[in-house]
Amino acid sequence: MSKHRLVIIGYGNVSRGVRASIAKSADMELVGIVSRSPERVKREVADLPVIAMENAEAELQRLGAEIAILGGGSKNDLPKFGPRFAKAIDTVDSFDNHIHIPDHFAAMDEAAKSTGHVAVISSGWDPGIFSMERTLAGAFLPGSRGYGFYGLGPAGGLSMGHSDALRTIPGVKDARQFTHAIPEAIERVRKGENPDFQPGDMHRRECFVVLEPGADPAAISKTITEMPGYFAPYDTTINFVSEEELKERFGGFPHDGLVVAAGTTGNGNKALVEYRCQWGSNPEATANVLVATARAVTRLRAEGKRGAFTILDIPPAYFSPCSREELLKHWM
Amino acid sequence: MSKHRLVIIGYGNVSRGVRASIAKSADMELVGIVSRSPERVKREVADLPVIAMENAEAELQRLGAEIAILGGGSKNDLPKFGPRFAKAIDTVDSFDNHIHIPDHFAAMDEAAKSTGHVAVISSGWDPGIFSMERTLAGAFLPGSRGYGFYGLGPAGGLSMGHSDALRTIPGVKDARQFTHAIPEAIERVRKGENPDFQPGDMHRRECFVVLEPGADPAAISKTITEMPGYFAPYDTTINFVSEEELKERFGGFPHDGLVVAAGTTGNGNKALVEYRCQWGSNPEATANVLVATARAVTRLRAEGKRGAFTILDIPPAYFSPCSREELLKHWM
Repeated sequence: MSKHRLVIIGYGNVSRGVRASIAKSADMELVGIVSRSPERVKREVADLPVIAMENAEAELQRLGAEIAILGGGSKNDLPKFGPRFAKAIDTVDSFDNHIHIPDHFAAMDEAAKSTGHVAVISSGWDPGIFSMERTLAGAFLPGSRGYGFYGLGPAGGLSMGHSDALRTIPGVKDARQFTHAIPEAIERVRKGENPDFQPGDMHRRECFVVLEPGADPAAISKTITEMPGYFAPYDTTINFVSEEELKERFGGFPHDGLVVAAGTTGNGNKALVEYRCQWGSNPEATANVLVATARAVTRLRAEGKRGAFTILDIPPAYFSPCSREELLKHWM
Repeated sequence: MSKHRLVIIGYGNVSRGVRASIAKSADMELVGIVSRSPERVKREVADLPVIAMENAEAELQRLGAEIAILGGGSKNDLPKFGPRFAKAIDTVDSFDNHIHIPDHFAAMDEAAKSTGHVAVISSGWDPGIFSMERTLAGAFLPGSRGYGFYGLGPAGGLSMGHSDALRTIPGVKDARQFTHAIPEAIERVRKGENPDFQPGDMHRRECFVVLEPGADPAAISKTITEMPGYFAPYDTTINFVSEEELKERFGGFPHDGLVVAAGTTGNGNKALVEYRCQWGSNPEATANVLVATARAVTRLRAEGKRGAFTILDIPPAYFSPCSREELLKHWM
């Protein structure tokens, strides 16, 4: 079997997961990494070409790369280098700034179409798998609403965005924020109430904060609990811990979530669907979805599709390494 | 909005659910029912044309029907009238005899292609939604195995096939069989053991049986527990009840199920995905999926697709009444 030739653009935690996931996929191989800090990446990755961001396009062509998995953040990185690379190569990204998805889609669609490429955006677990589950639940149970909950287990789910927000506060040396779903809210949805929740009704937030020497815990607590959008609407707990404790107890990236939708069928029979995922590593889970999406890109291209797509536009079979015959026989 | 014109072929419990589901779908209307017993159906359905099975094709054309939802059983009905109608009109069915899905696919593919139609087969919740969830879990967590469990709630899930098997026993007047998942088996899968189960390891079976006057309960119990395939491999409980009790306590069609797959990401971080559904009415749940699939058929046709397909070949967006713009803005 000839393997699909992938590159990674940007090398952070998700991209490390992408590299591990490609290594386990018999139909794909990683042929290079593009980075703004090639020297840093070269120290970590000895066995692959590491390409500087400038003039990367020529190098991608030289390597025969077919698909680029775009790492990098949704705020600053993807809006900038997404359309640039969508003009040069088929791309997959996990753009996760929900409110700006239509803009990112339009920019990637225009770029990809201008040169005949395929660009799948926002493919991870949320947005991504969860978007698919919400859409299917809405289609199969008309009138139901799909609710997303995060951090159902005792440890909760690590929120990178909220952890970053804590770290912007002067006097905070390091921090992690764990989101906890409120069980009573889940039960209301399961009962079919389809409630109108405010954000603080569904989740509470737990912060573990390492202070800079001399920082005032009371003042920092006040800053956190009053931070608009991030913490003010929520029941927020703050724990001050040592740097060692933060690393030891909260060094990983666990996360989990639930999509739940309740409705009725026929003349009022209850119906409830739930999709639940638990990830030991949030960035690696996103990475696995990205790599399966790269496989789907090869099928979209073969079908003649061009432009931008989301997971909602992709037949489930396209993510699978199995043939149609295998799927009909063993997976239906 | 011009509505899609649907007909139902065969009128049992699933088709009654299809009728109720179409009535709630703003983009579809039911224009007729085809039946082998039109007189019986006419007594139940006063407000629609009821068409006899013979020469139904001419009548479908006269009614301007675009899509037929095929009711009827997988054993005798669908293999016979499936290909017949796939030559005449776009079709959707819920063929659920897993082992014969490749044969049914081939027959429907040939028939549909011969006249330029679309035929989606095996679209319900299992096969159907569960097939999709198994395939996606396998793609996102390479190496994991997707397990299906049924009857997780205290009442268990009503199995129509096993209820029918009980009714074939001489001396049995009526019966219902409820399947129960074995919780310890689910826990083993959740732990990531990926066990090799025998059928009896995953489920137990509970029978509620009404005897004919004079029938011997001990002999019938022996016949049930030794019935190959259906009951012999399982821990089976038999309860003899009165006809009234059977109707009152067990008159509905509840069912529920779970797809669960455990694997790892990266270098061994645990990952677990679960899809759970609970249906007050099993046939109505199947019906809702069939109607959403009929919507998908209109999109496959518009895209130029012809021949047979399963739910694995259909982009999730095709099931939804929402536009791409709405999906990008509100559902991602």
